[in-house]
Amino acid sequence: MIPMGTGTSASRYVKAIHEVLKSSGVIFVPGPMSTSVEVKTFQELFRVIDAANERLKEMGVQRIITNIRIDCRLDKEISIRSKLGAVGP
Amino acid sequence: MIPMGTGTSASRYVKAIHEVLKSSGVIFVPGPMSTSVEVKTFQELFRVIDAANERLKEMGVQRIITNIRIDCRLDKEISIRSKLGAVGP
Amino acid sequence: MIPMGTGTSASRYVKAIHEVLKSSGVIFVPGPMSTSVEVKTFQELFRVIDAANERLKEMGVQRIITNIRIDCRLDKEISIRSKLGAVGP
Amino acid sequence: MIPMGTGTSASRYVKAIHEVLKSSGVIFVPGPMSTSVEVKTFQELFRVIDAANERLKEMGVQRIITNIRIDCRLDKEISIRSKLGAVGP
Repeated sequence: MIPMGTGTSASRYVKAIHEVLKSSGVIFVPGPMSTSVEVKTFQELFRVIDAANERLKEMGVQRIITNIRIDCRLDKEISIRSKLGAVGP
Repeated sequence: MIPMGTGTSASRYVKAIHEVLKSSGVIFVPGPMSTSVEVKTFQELFRVIDAANERLKEMGVQRIITNIRIDCRLDKEISIRSKLGAVGP
Repeated sequence: MIPMGTGTSASRYVKAIHEVLKSSGVIFVPGPMSTSVEVKTFQELFRVIDAANERLKEMGVQRIITNIRIDCRLDKEISIRSKLGAVGP
Repeated sequence: MIPMGTGTSASRYVKAIHEVLKSSGVIFVPGPMSTSVEVKTFQELFRVIDAANERLKEMGVQRIITNIRIDCRLDKEISIRSKLGAVGP
């Protein structure tokens, strides 16, 4: 999520979103360019995105560009841990 | 939405998603690299993404990578038409 | 390309980038969420991205978030026109 | 980088790209949804993307969808470490 019209620093918004993710109970991993979230259903994903977006609005952000990438796999169970394990260390 | 494990061509999946968008009644504009969708609420957006994802699953796709970019603006009303008009012709 | 720290409107920056693309001679199609560019080589792509980034710096933008998606296909010739034709009208 | 036409698993391609990054000497951090790379210049970035793309072609991939996000900041020095530190732990 990229806030526009709030200056060049976004760290306080990123921290606020991490608080939202913590409260929601989903597994998440912060990264330097994005935060990865592990969910079981699309509904769970949409609920946390909506909550994060609402949080930034409450903080007064007037324009929010959100980039989401979903990896939806049916042929095997995946998780943040399994995905990192498949290519690492 | 990028189907994996189905060969290099994706046009029949893109066409199927456009059918889903048509049925849903949202305004959408196909582009060479992505399709733009105009919605009033996050709920509307999530409903069409979920429907498109379900359609690809029904077609037998085993892994779907979906990239979504949301432009959520509070300080003025925007639309696909207004955004194109602001920078064109 | 999303300028940060310059307010909520980005249309003048988008227009400036379109001028850069025009000068460079590449085929491009503006869209509501992104601009599609047709190039023959990665070098050509990188040259226009670098030029666009330099243009925004000259305009005083202090932070630029750039999202690029490349569709590189070896099994058949593709173009903006062929990709739109494959799924349209 | 998403290989198309090679099945649903991409881990051997991701590993090959990590080998390319190691050889190139850039700092990089694998993540569950993408790999973050730290470079000083656009030229350095473009060189590793081109090398990774060539590696996948050598492995026989016929279509490659590459998503790149660049964070280019002029008002202060940033790094993978500084970005994670700004929002963590």
